[in-house]
Amino acid sequence: MQFEVSEEYIDNIQQLIEEHRDGELLQLLEEVHHADIAEIIDELELDQATYIIKLLDSTKTSEALMELEEDVRERILDNLSAKEIAEELENMDTDDAADIIAELSEERKQEVIGEIIDEEHAEHIVELLRYDENSAGGLMAKELVKVNENWSVTGCMTEMRAQAENVTRVHSIYVVDDRGKLKGRLSLKDLLTAPSKANISDVYIPKVDYVNVHTKGDEVARVMQKYDLEAIPVVDEMGRLVGRVTIDDIVDFIRDEAEKDYQMAAGISEDVEADDSILRLTRARLPWLILALLGGFVSVTVLGTFDAAMQEHAALFFFVPLIAAMAGNVGVQSSAIVLQGLANQSLSGSLFNRLIKEILLSLLNGAALALLLIVAGIFLLGFDFWFGLTVGISLISVIVIASLIGTFVPIILDKFGIDPAMATGPFITTSNDIFGILIYFTIAKLILGF
Amino acid sequence: MQFEVSEEYIDNIQQLIEEHRDGELLQLLEEVHHADIAEIIDELELDQATYIIKLLDSTKTSEALMELEEDVRERILDNLSAKEIAEELENMDTDDAADIIAELSEERKQEVIGEIIDEEHAEHIVELLRYDENSAGGLMAKELVKVNENWSVTGCMTEMRAQAENVTRVHSIYVVDDRGKLKGRLSLKDLLTAPSKANISDVYIPKVDYVNVHTKGDEVARVMQKYDLEAIPVVDEMGRLVGRVTIDDIVDFIRDEAEKDYQMAAGISEDVEADDSILRLTRARLPWLILALLGGFVSVTVLGTFDAAMQEHAALFFFVPLIAAMAGNVGVQSSAIVLQGLANQSLSGSLFNRLIKEILLSLLNGAALALLLIVAGIFLLGFDFWFGLTVGISLISVIVIASLIGTFVPIILDKFGIDPAMATGPFITTSNDIFGILIYFTIAKLILGF
Repeated sequence: MQFEVSEEYIDNIQQLIEEHRDGELLQLLEEVHHADIAEIIDELELDQATYIIKLLDSTKTSEALMELEEDVRERILDNLSAKEIAEELENMDTDDAADIIAELSEERKQEVIGEIIDEEHAEHIVELLRYDENSAGGLMAKELVKVNENWSVTGCMTEMRAQAENVTRVHSIYVVDDRGKLKGRLSLKDLLTAPSKANISDVYIPKVDYVNVHTKGDEVARVMQKYDLEAIPVVDEMGRLVGRVTIDDIVDFIRDEAEKDYQMAAGISEDVEADDSILRLTRARLPWLILALLGGFVSVTVLGTFDAAMQEHAALFFFVPLIAAMAGNVGVQSSAIVLQGLANQSLSGSLFNRLIKEILLSLLNGAALALLLIVAGIFLLGFDFWFGLTVGISLISVIVIASLIGTFVPIILDKFGIDPAMATGPFITTSNDIFGILIYFTIAKLILGF
Repeated sequence: MQFEVSEEYIDNIQQLIEEHRDGELLQLLEEVHHADIAEIIDELELDQATYIIKLLDSTKTSEALMELEEDVRERILDNLSAKEIAEELENMDTDDAADIIAELSEERKQEVIGEIIDEEHAEHIVELLRYDENSAGGLMAKELVKVNENWSVTGCMTEMRAQAENVTRVHSIYVVDDRGKLKGRLSLKDLLTAPSKANISDVYIPKVDYVNVHTKGDEVARVMQKYDLEAIPVVDEMGRLVGRVTIDDIVDFIRDEAEKDYQMAAGISEDVEADDSILRLTRARLPWLILALLGGFVSVTVLGTFDAAMQEHAALFFFVPLIAAMAGNVGVQSSAIVLQGLANQSLSGSLFNRLIKEILLSLLNGAALALLLIVAGIFLLGFDFWFGLTVGISLISVIVIASLIGTFVPIILDKFGIDPAMATGPFITTSNDIFGILIYFTIAKLILGF
């Protein structure tokens, strides 16, 4: 049943557009899901895409617009008038509409909001624009079904049906008091089986999970995931119900965050895709490479200070990339484990215990690797004993230090409120390269003397 | 409203357990959500945890067991009899029960299944055990609400109420024919507003997204995410409705996959957490480090073959870690971008175009970095021109080669059906170290001659 956007399909659509055969286009796309419309638009030229957006009904295109990559959407919106954009927004849920408006220039924003006919919708969007995009306020939609605790069950049914018109999926009915404060929730089943003369206050469930408008996105995701919620109500500073976050937005949020973390770990500082422009990819990659290059300069300088060793112990220099690579790998492993622990809030125990554990772990790993290195070195490469000892001890020391840096730099950054994901990938490998080389030659100097 | 598992709270519970004050324990934990019970259990000693599991009602503990880390759960289950485990399973949805049984030893499995009283439940679990855990069959539950297309709306309401008893959340009502083939779906609203004399076949929506039992987990996740589905029906090879996958399981799946990818990129080969045992962490980390060490041996050997350069051009060796680090960083960046493209199925265009683009991109980045390196080298470190040229040209070449390796190794692995995530992190950095050093000294030999 999977709909497939084939090349022939796109060719066909392009031809219909060229020949302005609107009737056939409308017929062809009538049954197509908006997410597939988005995929089709993604394959078209900009003017063809704009043509489709203008041709189709905005109930469909508004949803399709939401599914597009931000940069594609931006270019299409540039081709639409403020009035046309406003029409699309009228058909979107408030959270989606606010996300789109947030992407426009200040001037355009005003213009578009002015063109929205539904006053309440416009007000809701303006309200949502105030919140940080990574907070519950930024993730929530205003669309929800709420009833007053003082209403009767019968009165409530009528009111509820009217509200439900605007809500795609009713997960829960929220109960509020006269001041709009969240009091509890009701399931549709409860409402249907309640005696019709009862008041809402007699039948609602006073226990309800909720978050505050300022709750961070990852905390919202954690709570919804932990309690398997499909929607969570959002309250303001006074406890008033102001919106709800639904699971589909949280699924997108989780995926975006995971991609960001992954890219950060790989030294990519903007959200990019393989199909982005060379300029955009360069902007995302070059800063980290420059950082690594600067780190490289430091390692060159460090090595330069040990040039006295070159006469007698030239082979020391052959092991530099090995030592640096081990330091980098161990550091990245340690930081990845700690970062995930920080993200899942699953790090327990004291810092001291963690220190002891990390030292034991890295000593164990380091000793195993050093043994392998010494044995292979002596038997295969013909090391003399002191040289083997030097490289072996250096390897253990470098691994211990690298794993401590990898573990504690993220923890310390986190304590100071800095995103610990910064301390991963290139940052850790670069600093561990430098420390690794420094430790290696210092130990070599102590043992071999030069 | 967030429930907080504080130290005092745990102390209190531990004391109540020690003193066998069961009544108070039951009262204290009565209102606590099962996900929080899981968090409490996680903080307790094994025998205390077992005590709680045995004390509380299995409707609650069965859900809590599901939320635990696999290794904690395993130890608790070891303390329970087959009959006690079966009792827990009776209260779980079939998908959760199958996941738990899959973790038991073959012998125990048989024993536990034999103790399940509800025959149908047992049959369902056995059926689910047949599917790969990363397929729709492995992710689905048997619990769903289905109606026959030939039923009347009235008859259907009665039947449906009975089925809904076993289903936590009714997302959609699925419509099947006499042979059990999936025909379409119905919303509760449609059913409520349909004339009671109508047949289901008159009112159902024949358009329904579905997946096959063998559809891979990430494809299920992609479809549900694309179409914002909260549940998707699963059919067997004959198109018969056999289960459904719900969004909460997909949320867990997405997060697990993202963690696995992230760990793979960091050179961690098992799913571990910071709080796991040293042995388990070593098992996850050491294999990659051994790989990196072997790669290190190769780089030592490569460097050794260029020892003739040491007399006249000692400074060449100081730049080895810089070159290796740049190669590693560029390779990881390229592979991360390609891997995400492969995962999202968003890589479009021909391989040749990708090759041209990657070469242009890396030439641009490489030239910028080489310029920086040469200028800084000549003015700060006092390079002579030929030496600067050598390092600069090497840097550009190494960056181009590293980015090609990072881009195409994952693509090639993917073509051969191997998980392309293997080709990331330590694998890419290690091989790029070696190629980088080889290229660097080859170019140096050509320009400087030694």
